[in-house]
Amino acid sequence: MAHFTTVAERFTAIYYSTFDRNRSELFPLYRDRSMLTWENTQHLGARAIIEKLSNLPFTTVQHKITTQDAQPSSESINSIIVLVTGLLVVDGSENPLQFSQVFHLIPEGESFWVFNDVFRLNYG
Amino acid sequence: MAHFTTVAERFTAIYYSTFDRNRSELFPLYRDRSMLTWENTQHLGARAIIEKLSNLPFTTVQHKITTQDAQPSSESINSIIVLVTGLLVVDGSENPLQFSQVFHLIPEGESFWVFNDVFRLNYG
Repeated sequence: MAHFTTVAERFTAIYYSTFDRNRSELFPLYRDRSMLTWENTQHLGARAIIEKLSNLPFTTVQHKITTQDAQPSSESINSIIVLVTGLLVVDGSENPLQFSQVFHLIPEGESFWVFNDVFRLNYG
Repeated sequence: MAHFTTVAERFTAIYYSTFDRNRSELFPLYRDRSMLTWENTQHLGARAIIEKLSNLPFTTVQHKITTQDAQPSSESINSIIVLVTGLLVVDGSENPLQFSQVFHLIPEGESFWVFNDVFRLNYG
């Protein structure tokens, strides 16, 4: 499964660095059929997803990945499921928030787009 | 997405109650192609997965679900991705462990089996 792991690591590196720099630049990673569940809200399609992400109530944010695990999700296409756990530093807070996020990546040419995206904060 | 949510809730209720009672009884939920990532180890196929789960180093365990979110994972079959976050009470410990787990459920007849299963403890 090395290939899937490599793809997943490249994806999350790009995804979170983009997220932390300028969330609106994530637009090309989603499609009209993409789904985002962010805490208790659901969003369908790249436009709605980017609107949601852009309007999250913080100015600066930094993702620190603790673990990431990938598996192939299909026997017919090279799609990949990635589970990420980590810490979210919001507006420079000294108390980072724990999060879990799963991505379902669909291959398209040489790259991948996000079909499923579920984000949850983990409260103790 | 109500249908997916209902399926996911039924699945996790059965899965965790079975896990907490007798882990070997989870066997019918996996197939030869099923994958489990449990912390840093990977296991392929129902037999290997049940062997791993059965040999986990605790006697009693209780899962307490905090959140669960489901999305359809395909446009051609009724497969479902479920992200669960919750607490794991091991051997009656007063300090439950936080966990995140993602399941990828594949329909077969009237039921579903687990193609992908990724489990991670979340350390603060």
